[in-house]
Amino acid sequence: MRSVSIIGIGETKMGNFPNRTLREMISEAGNTAIKDAGVEKKEIQAIFFGNFVGQQLTGQGHMGALVSETLGLGHIPAIRMEGACASGGLAFRSALIAVASGMYDTVLVGGAEKMTHQATPQVTESIASAMDYNLEAMQGYTFPANFAMIANRYFYEHRNVKKEMAMCAVNAHHNATLNPDAQMPKELDLNKVLAADTIASPLSLFDCSLITDGAAFLVLTTTERAKQISQNRVVEVIGSGHAGDTLTLFSKKTMTSFAAAKEAAKQAYTQANLKPADIDFAEVHDCFTITQIINIEDLGFAEPGHGGDLVAEGGISIEGSKPINVSGGLKAKGHPIGATGISQIFEVVTQLRGDAGKRQLKKNDIGLTHNLGGTAATAIINIFKGL
Amino acid sequence: MRSVSIIGIGETKMGNFPNRTLREMISEAGNTAIKDAGVEKKEIQAIFFGNFVGQQLTGQGHMGALVSETLGLGHIPAIRMEGACASGGLAFRSALIAVASGMYDTVLVGGAEKMTHQATPQVTESIASAMDYNLEAMQGYTFPANFAMIANRYFYEHRNVKKEMAMCAVNAHHNATLNPDAQMPKELDLNKVLAADTIASPLSLFDCSLITDGAAFLVLTTTERAKQISQNRVVEVIGSGHAGDTLTLFSKKTMTSFAAAKEAAKQAYTQANLKPADIDFAEVHDCFTITQIINIEDLGFAEPGHGGDLVAEGGISIEGSKPINVSGGLKAKGHPIGATGISQIFEVVTQLRGDAGKRQLKKNDIGLTHNLGGTAATAIINIFKGL
Repeated sequence: MRSVSIIGIGETKMGNFPNRTLREMISEAGNTAIKDAGVEKKEIQAIFFGNFVGQQLTGQGHMGALVSETLGLGHIPAIRMEGACASGGLAFRSALIAVASGMYDTVLVGGAEKMTHQATPQVTESIASAMDYNLEAMQGYTFPANFAMIANRYFYEHRNVKKEMAMCAVNAHHNATLNPDAQMPKELDLNKVLAADTIASPLSLFDCSLITDGAAFLVLTTTERAKQISQNRVVEVIGSGHAGDTLTLFSKKTMTSFAAAKEAAKQAYTQANLKPADIDFAEVHDCFTITQIINIEDLGFAEPGHGGDLVAEGGISIEGSKPINVSGGLKAKGHPIGATGISQIFEVVTQLRGDAGKRQLKKNDIGLTHNLGGTAATAIINIFKGL
Repeated sequence: MRSVSIIGIGETKMGNFPNRTLREMISEAGNTAIKDAGVEKKEIQAIFFGNFVGQQLTGQGHMGALVSETLGLGHIPAIRMEGACASGGLAFRSALIAVASGMYDTVLVGGAEKMTHQATPQVTESIASAMDYNLEAMQGYTFPANFAMIANRYFYEHRNVKKEMAMCAVNAHHNATLNPDAQMPKELDLNKVLAADTIASPLSLFDCSLITDGAAFLVLTTTERAKQISQNRVVEVIGSGHAGDTLTLFSKKTMTSFAAAKEAAKQAYTQANLKPADIDFAEVHDCFTITQIINIEDLGFAEPGHGGDLVAEGGISIEGSKPINVSGGLKAKGHPIGATGISQIFEVVTQLRGDAGKRQLKKNDIGLTHNLGGTAATAIINIFKGL
């Protein structure tokens, strides 16, 4: 298998854009990534695209072809991939394998979602298609309820981390103030976060990620070619893992760590020949604040039950020992679901290139992305190195 | 790249099954394919799954994980792929590349759709997500209208083939009487077909394919391993092509042949080093009868404008020179959309193995599958050889 690098990135601002169509967001982010890569459109040989709820919320499926037509890419193969909130991660992972295998030399990877034009109940129902419809969603079960159960179990097995969850939210929204693409840049007061309305106990308003419109794209090629043509620091994919788990929560062996994420992390660390301590910073899937704390443990940044300690001591902040979600994360940059896994990589590349402006990290050689789908039934974890 | 073969097949009966869930159909077809392959479940390393309208019609997304949990396949990677009616073809093609590249040795490929529990207007609306929503579907445009325009243009550029279209339907429904998995086994009278109610002129009732519940699965491995372990005739994938086109009809350069299908066919013929005349039989994407006539031309089985001649002279029948849709096709075996591309391959493998019973072809060494998505915006064409 060949080494693969990222040579182009592009994303829209994340937010609530009633007047933007999927086509328009795809056009902006896709053309930006291709221009950034410095390749001709005719050099792009395939499209891998992540989208989750487009069919339910916008009536639009078949988005591989939509991307191809919008960007004028002709008759190349185009595939939409869907694995709930890990749809973008799946698209990236498939593109990575396609280039690594020698099947293609240069490919476009993207994701987009348009969600905010629908009312919250419709959005919540569409997102519930990530769980088992008959056994879970049809019973009235929703994702806030799902992760609230996980949080309650975590509190029972370990300790109450409600305050540390709130600190995750404060950190994310602060970081978002430094990111011009973020949906909700806002300094939050910890006590106000803790006093916010309950959504599903113990989760309250600021424990939940955002509903977002947005798109993000990447151009991938071989590291050999990237070194020849790139005007920017080449970002190599040095480790990648993909694993699954049961769709339903009740079938899992444990609720307080995610087996798919642990397995995907193991694959990525093994391929990169790195340990958790070697990772400079990470973008993790904080669909809820409790998820971020569990993710920190699953990635080996803290022992089980101690993810909250890293948060409490300020370790996840931009100045901390292990900056997490410097972009603002799903919580404050936004969660344009099919684009999320791609947008995480956009941030890592931006950091590794030194282009992150006010939120630029000093240690910026090794970054990690962690993307989950559904009740952690799909996990894709990647490790990137600036060459 | 390594040679890849199919060693396991399984499918449900196709039809209208109000009491069958996606899980149940996946369980039946998936377990049948794994058993047929003679491999242990722990040998399966990844899942590639096609589904089109599951999120809209059943509320169920994230079907990679659904398949994994249903079949008890543990933590292996699982991906749902969607390219409208070519979703199954995309899953197959991606699995093929994954094994050919050396990434995995043995993988499961499947597709399923549950459609008949919804009323026809809801089904029609969900299928319209395969076209451009804003520019086409939202204007009231539907797929019968779409292919009616294509038929009218075909009549204008070439000649009226309404009678030959009816003969395609008669052939398909006759073939279905010989296929125990077919949804609509029925001998049709040509004059009654021609006199049927109009759906969208010139298409009438029997020019349209079916709304179907069903699932189909395959097990793929390297040809080297297949030869070692298979109890059946090994079916090698000797050619494969995948191409795209604009999502919208109005952007296409021509409406009377499909550029994506012609490009995919070219790729498959080139890889297989075969000509159209070398193909013993084919399963083609007859979503409408006019599509079948165009497909015959795009595959090079007849000159442009002369697909109807092959039909009129009986060439597509089981006893003909180029049997087409011996299974009954989308028209009469059924069109369980996400499963269709897989179900076509199920038929080819069944024929190549000599297991097709009353519809068994005598020339059964080289078979072809042709799977289209949307307004021919996605095409996957594969050529198979019995070793």
